[in-house]
Amino acid sequence: MDASDPVLIIKIGGNVLDHPPDTHSFLNKFIGLPHKKILIHGGGKLATDLSARLGMETKMVDGRRITDFETLKIATMVYAGWTNKSLVADLQAMGVNALGLSGADLNLVQAQKRPVRDIDYGWVGDVSKIFIKRWSFLLENGILPVLCAITHDRQGHLLNTNADTLASELACALVEKYPVKLIYCFEKRGVLLDQLDDQSVIPQLDKEAYLRLKEAGIISKGMIPKLENAFKASAKGIQDVYICAAQNIDQYQTSGTQICPSMIPNSTN
Amino acid sequence: MDASDPVLIIKIGGNVLDHPPDTHSFLNKFIGLPHKKILIHGGGKLATDLSARLGMETKMVDGRRITDFETLKIATMVYAGWTNKSLVADLQAMGVNALGLSGADLNLVQAQKRPVRDIDYGWVGDVSKIFIKRWSFLLENGILPVLCAITHDRQGHLLNTNADTLASELACALVEKYPVKLIYCFEKRGVLLDQLDDQSVIPQLDKEAYLRLKEAGIISKGMIPKLENAFKASAKGIQDVYICAAQNIDQYQTSGTQICPSMIPNSTN
Repeated sequence: MDASDPVLIIKIGGNVLDHPPDTHSFLNKFIGLPHKKILIHGGGKLATDLSARLGMETKMVDGRRITDFETLKIATMVYAGWTNKSLVADLQAMGVNALGLSGADLNLVQAQKRPVRDIDYGWVGDVSKIFIKRWSFLLENGILPVLCAITHDRQGHLLNTNADTLASELACALVEKYPVKLIYCFEKRGVLLDQLDDQSVIPQLDKEAYLRLKEAGIISKGMIPKLENAFKASAKGIQDVYICAAQNIDQYQTSGTQICPSMIPNSTN
Repeated sequence: MDASDPVLIIKIGGNVLDHPPDTHSFLNKFIGLPHKKILIHGGGKLATDLSARLGMETKMVDGRRITDFETLKIATMVYAGWTNKSLVADLQAMGVNALGLSGADLNLVQAQKRPVRDIDYGWVGDVSKIFIKRWSFLLENGILPVLCAITHDRQGHLLNTNADTLASELACALVEKYPVKLIYCFEKRGVLLDQLDDQSVIPQLDKEAYLRLKEAGIISKGMIPKLENAFKASAKGIQDVYICAAQNIDQYQTSGTQICPSMIPNSTN
């Protein structure tokens, strides 16, 4: 593969995965996109549902799951098991050479268990090392990696890692070797000015505008960590960062929100 | 890799996986074995436990699980999820370049949903095609494949496949390219003459003796499909087929039961 050929890193949100017809329709458009691709996913409602059926309580802080050992098991079973292998089987049925992965496989993504400060997140990992050569090995051999949001510490422990963060970290690592496009796909059409109006997509968003909208409470909840991750990648020099609807993945450059490099000096810190 | 360098296909039984210290001790000996290796596993008690906690009934016929869609989900979550990724994380911690796989990944093992005759096995797959070149690609790149007993039909459906059968089928396919050694590891020391005496290991067993012992009721239950799979591989020309204790994997050639080619003409049909 020519190193100037871009790599598309596409993160697919949980709500889309909860509806097999939506997933199928997304995958059909996804495989039609040019360039090398990496698909990143979490697990959607299935993990929450399974926890509930087992009488376990799902604890969330700032949109992040608190992961005790039982929750880690559930997350690994759902993300790396059913969700990952279902996506791989669907892609293989479409004739695509997909390979399902966690960060532990081939030691592709190493993480550190998050240190306990105010909050003990449990078995949650922050990405510490991404092995670019191993990713190149897969991409250059015509393999489409499907990565779930489970990593490891290389000491034998699996760790739960936020899928949005994982996508951003992978983009920031691979941009050292390839032009990278990072696309966050979810159930909405992009970043909305009015949550009740699906047509109110903000076509371009820079960090200054984002901070203003966050301050005004227009951007809130789960969108905040997603945008923080998007701006982190943008600050690292990734010019193509988009947030769009999974069903518009074939028009990702025109249908959703493009994240623009910040105009504020040092605002990326 | 020299094509004359053997490939060890090692199937690890569920009871060993149920006890992390046993798994760890097994893996430590396993990684010390010479030659290229493939590790195959099912899921042990965890799948049964999870089904029970969810109020699902586990149906078995002749030692084989009947797989309705919910059971397939559980099997995929446990085998391809928690069990597979735990093994991979452990091996990576030992410095081994492990890659966790199902048959769907890279389309490594294709299967057919078993046709309904007397019994409807549900989402159970019989191996139909093994892509030797893709296995070679992994082995020749220094990767240790860890394969769980989930396959696919390449029409988008995951299938549950007996892990003993999968090991035998993989051995029968890869022997076309490599000298293959097939080793079934479990909690017992080998095929026993007396189930109550762990020292009564039969050192060598041919098909004639097996049939006599089966007739006499000395070999029964779960050992029958395991041995049928072992003899199938033996009949295909694999001279090194062993059944031994997981804790004796470092002495597999001397500590357990060696399966010998049959002396009876046509007895392999």
